[in-house]
Order: sequence, then C-alpha cells, then structure tokens
Amino acid sequence: MSRAAEARVTMSERVEEIVVDLGPRSYPVLVGANVLALVGPRLAALGFRNRCAVLTSERIGALYREPLQASLREAELEPVVVEIPDGEEHKNFAWLAVIYDRLIEAGIDRRTPIVALGGGVIGDLGGFAAGTLLRGLPLVQVPTTLLAQVDAAVGGKTGVNHALGKNLVGVFHQPQFVLADVEVLRTLPRREFVAGLAEVIKYGVIFEAALFRHIDRHLDGLLALRRDLLVSVVTASCRHKAAVVAADEREEHGQRTVLNFGHTIGHAIETLTDYKQLLHGEAVAIGMVAAARVSRALGCCGSETVERLEGLLQRAGLPTEIPRGLKPGAIALAMQTDKKSAAGRIRFVAVEEIGRTRLIDLSAAEIASQL
Amino acid sequence: MSRAAEARVTMSERVEEIVVDLGPRSYPVLVGANVLALVGPRLAALGFRNRCAVLTSERIGALYREPLQASLREAELEPVVVEIPDGEEHKNFAWLAVIYDRLIEAGIDRRTPIVALGGGVIGDLGGFAAGTLLRGLPLVQVPTTLLAQVDAAVGGKTGVNHALGKNLVGVFHQPQFVLADVEVLRTLPRREFVAGLAEVIKYGVIFEAALFRHIDRHLDGLLALRRDLLVSVVTASCRHKAAVVAADEREEHGQRTVLNFGHTIGHAIETLTDYKQLLHGEAVAIGMVAAARVSRALGCCGSETVERLEGLLQRAGLPTEIPRGLKPGAIALAMQTDKKSAAGRIRFVAVEEIGRTRLIDLSAAEIASQL
Repeated sequence: MSRAAEARVTMSERVEEIVVDLGPRSYPVLVGANVLALVGPRLAALGFRNRCAVLTSERIGALYREPLQASLREAELEPVVVEIPDGEEHKNFAWLAVIYDRLIEAGIDRRTPIVALGGGVIGDLGGFAAGTLLRGLPLVQVPTTLLAQVDAAVGGKTGVNHALGKNLVGVFHQPQFVLADVEVLRTLPRREFVAGLAEVIKYGVIFEAALFRHIDRHLDGLLALRRDLLVSVVTASCRHKAAVVAADEREEHGQRTVLNFGHTIGHAIETLTDYKQLLHGEAVAIGMVAAARVSRALGCCGSETVERLEGLLQRAGLPTEIPRGLKPGAIALAMQTDKKSAAGRIRFVAVEEIGRTRLIDLSAAEIASQL
Repeated sequence: MSRAAEARVTMSERVEEIVVDLGPRSYPVLVGANVLALVGPRLAALGFRNRCAVLTSERIGALYREPLQASLREAELEPVVVEIPDGEEHKNFAWLAVIYDRLIEAGIDRRTPIVALGGGVIGDLGGFAAGTLLRGLPLVQVPTTLLAQVDAAVGGKTGVNHALGKNLVGVFHQPQFVLADVEVLRTLPRREFVAGLAEVIKYGVIFEAALFRHIDRHLDGLLALRRDLLVSVVTASCRHKAAVVAADEREEHGQRTVLNFGHTIGHAIETLTDYKQLLHGEAVAIGMVAAARVSRALGCCGSETVERLEGLLQRAGLPTEIPRGLKPGAIALAMQTDKKSAAGRIRFVAVEEIGRTRLIDLSAAEIASQL
C-alpha cells in the first residue's frame, strides 16, 4: 500500500465535513489531522483528470509541496507548481501577473483545478487568479494558517491589494472544497497561531457562548496544539462561517456583516500602522475589545462582557489595547474610507453578551468618540 | 420641460424590454431609438443615488457623454467620467489599472454604479472593472456598436486581453440593465455596422429561420439604418441571446455553446491575422461559411444551406472566404489553443438547416481537415 493510500485509511475516520450550502455552488469543508493526502482523491471524485496547478508560497511549498504533489499524482492529476515569495507585500498585481503568465503558459483549460496551498495571501491571490482566468477555474483551498482555516478559506472571498488600499480588487469565487489540515499548524510560527485564535474567539463572542467557554477551559491544550482540540475549534469555526456564508454569500443582506465584529476598528488600526506592527488577528483582538467598550458605552452590554473577552484574549497572549499614538480622529478617518462603509454609514457590530450581537448604523465619528 | 424629460416622453412608447431571466440576477435589456436619457431614471428607480461612474472611449465620449451625463445628473447621480483611448489594443491590464486608480480615487463604494458607454472594449473592460472592484459594483451596459448591442452587452461576460491571448482573464458579472439605443448606430463606421450584422445573421442561422428571412428581405432598409428595422433585429437578437444566457449563464451546460457557431474557426482566423486584417464580425462571417461547409462535409446539411448563408453575407458586404495564406494546419493549432477547448476536444456547432444546429465533439484537426 502506498504511503498516501495508507494515510487515507488511517485518517478517514476523523475527517469532519461541513457543507457550505449555496445551492449549485455548495461545497464541503473538510477538517482533520494529517488529511493533506485527501486532495488528490477528492479532486478525482469530482471528475478532474490530467492536470492541475498548485499555487503556494516558498516557505509552505518547501514544507508541504511534496506530499500534496504525491497525492495529486496518485489521482492522475499532474501538478504544475507556482511558488511566490511569502508575505502580504506580494499580494499585488505584479505577482498576480506572474501567476497568470505561469498558468497560461502551462496550458490550463477550464477544467484545470487550481489548488491554493498556503495562508491568506495565497488563498486570496490564488482564489482571484482562479476566479478570473478563463472567467473562472475550479479552485481548492488548502489553508495552512489557523486564520485562513477558520475564516478566509471558507466563503469565496478573494482579493488583491491596490496601492490605495487592501483588497480593493477581488471577486467572490467559491471553491470546489476546502481542506483544513490542523497538522500543518505545527509549523506555523506561534505568534501567527495565537493571532488566528482571535478569530476563533470571535465566533464564540458573536455566535456561541459554549465555544467561548470551550476555548476558555482548554486554552492551554489549544496552545499546546492538541489535535482533538484543534479539530474541534476549527470545525466549530468553519460551521459558523459556513452558516453565515450560506445565508449571505455576497455580503448583501447583513448576515455576513456580523463577522466584521472587531474588524471595523481592527482594520483601521492595521491601516494606520501600515500593516507592519500587528498581525491581522492581533488587530482584531484589539478591535474586539474596543468594539465591546463601544457597545458598553452605547448601553448594549455590561462591564462583565468586556472583561470576560479581554481576559481570554490576554490569557491567549493577544494584545487588547489600541497602540499609543493612534488618535480617535485618525481611526475615524480610516474607518470611513474602508470599502465596507456605504454612503458614510458603518454597520457597527455591537456585542450584547458573549454569544449575541446587534447591528447598529453609526458614523465613523460616532464610533471613534467612544474609544 | 427639460430636454431629457422631453426625450423620455417621446420615446417611452417604443422601448422594447427583454428580461434576462437569472433568478436574483435577472435584468432587463431595453431596446429603442433615442433612449439614452433613460439611463438616469432607470438607475434612480433601482435606488441608486448620489454618484455614479461612466466609463467610455474618447470617440464615443465626445459624441454621447453629454446627454448621458445630463440624464444622470437629473436623476441626482453625479457622474465621474473615465475615458480611455479607442481600440482593442487598450483592452489590457495597463488601462485596467488606470480605470481602477481613477475609480478608487473618486471614492466609489459598493453602491456606486458603473455605466459602460461604448463598444465591446469598453463593455468588457468596464464590466471587468465593475466585477472586481470592491468584489463587485453595480454595472449598466450601454453598448454603442451593433456587435455589442446584439451580443457582448447581454450575458455578463467581461474580459481583459493577456499578451498570450484575448480575454484570457475575465469574470461573469451581470449588469443591472442593458440599454441599446439604435440611434447611436448612425455614428458607427459603416464597416463596423456591417460586421455587426454578421452576428444578427448568426442568430437567424442558429435559432430562427424567420429572422434570417426578415434580414434577407429587408437588407437594404437595414443598411440604410431604418429605425424600425434596427429595433426589430436588435430586439430579436437580444431575445435569443437572453434565452441562451438564462439557460446557461456560465457556459457550463452547452446551451450557450451554440452561440459559438462560426466562432471556432472565426477566432482562429482572427488570431492568425493578429486581429488586424478583419473585424470580429467579418471573421465570424468567414467562420460561419466555413462551419457550414464543414457541416455539409459531415453530412449535417445540404449545399442549399451553405449557399443561402453565403449569399446573404455577401449581399450584406461581408467576406466569406478564408484569407489566402492561412493553412488548415495553422487554423487547427489556433483552434486547439482557444480557451473553449477542453482536454483537446472542441464542441463544434454544425448547422443542419437555417434555424437549426447540432453540437458535435471534434478535434481541431478533424475540423481543419474539412476546410
């Protein structure tokens, strides 16, 4: 028995499968430990043959390209591999052009699946390339950071940064499936893992007090990367994300807006610190505490909600205070120019208690005045 | 009464309205003479306010920007106008970047409609920009060539040319509505008008013998730009295009494939002549006759079908012979690298008689061997 086939057998029992219900565009999110070898057989089961492409980063490619290629080859999908350098600064049109060139030169056609193996940058850029080449190629998201596994890889959002702002260009392009292998989190820098936890905690705050308590109770085990705990929180997170995406695929009806909890202020902080000082999850942690404080000031929640949230984030090792030197006025201006503001109003996600939120239309100035 | 309001009154009786039935993405195609002033009120009726953007070319902008702007301002939609030079050579990433920059600098948000006023280049590039900025902005197609009115503007296809091929990058992005004003065809160069007729004739061949006969009978009137005839053939064409798009929005189920009649060979000819010698419609005219001859060779139709098609195209002033010097082998190779070929097979649209076609899976070599 080949190594890949063996791997399939040992892990077939512990793959969690969540369906993102989007009618004809529905797809599963698979979560498990050591499940990378499932990519090839799953693509084959969907009828893909002959060839495929893998887009990855240099660091992730060095670690996981080979087992992924083996799985694809065994499924008779000869992979073309395109690697780009690591880092958000490469999520731009210049690297998109490189990806376009390489894939077109490789002779892709409309049945050539693109596997995006990496973190958010690879998922966004690979997703955008797949969504726009030949007006849409099949896509598989194989997220390798906790942040991408619990958020970016599910829901079809893709994006490219523009000199005037992040993700100003993008499309919605739903994948054929998402495969989240928690085993790859072992090679993720600890700071990035912890930043990803902020998004998991966010799902607890906005949707499920039990998830919040679960993280609170098992925080040490999570930080020690216990497989069962990782699978449980990634699965719970993907389930929430899948439900929101199914209800509001293109952020048109407000259901998806709730995911912006902590992000309105968090994005502003990221913009003002030039995306250099803080990881996205760290900015979200700060943004969530700030949003909770604004919620308290608006009378939406009490102090104990703010304190529970702040306490858990701090125990996880996340920052919770707005960096010194960032003035409310500057934050207001940054919030206002965010692409999610429509006609100057922001749909602010306020927390009522752990597990429950409310949307309130506010101006950027009104939010900033409570910081 | 303002000029725009007056125009609305005089023309409200003769606007044909065809619905492209795509569930939540359904939209109307409006066809009439002197109907440009409807853009503003229609956008207002859809709830758009404050501002919008107009993308156009220098030539078309000089002719029609002002009445369009007046209509938009009267509807309280302050337009930002972006003009790019005329010509297919500008349908590239460099000009796309200019459009992105201008629109982002103008402070667009997700409720800012983009009006694409122009021919196929503007419709494709403007549609792609609208489809990708902020992950999708509302789009209005105002096609100003016969070709764009009867084909490109309906169906949501957008595209950008890549150095290695035309429209290799694109998205499907359905507009809010399409407005085809046949009056603007008076300023269209005659050669372009005639080339557009090739696509109208195509609808007759693939769907409706009566339309073919109508064109045949009234060819002189059409060439003299009689308004009622123009409205009738544009409306009939859009009705057919709308039905195909509704049945097969993303070219996944074959129904849309039938529109490729004459295009498989036509595209190859365009590629081999570097898109310089022939207009698209002229290449399609040649491709249709070639496809009819291949159909005859395969036993799908008789000589009278080939002759009727060839006769009408020639009377319209269209070319019907493959340019000297283009060898079948070269055409085969060009067909094979077309993005519509999947795994080396081409879904060839064969004609059975005027008004009826059949799809046959062939290799490029098999098609070329009959040329």
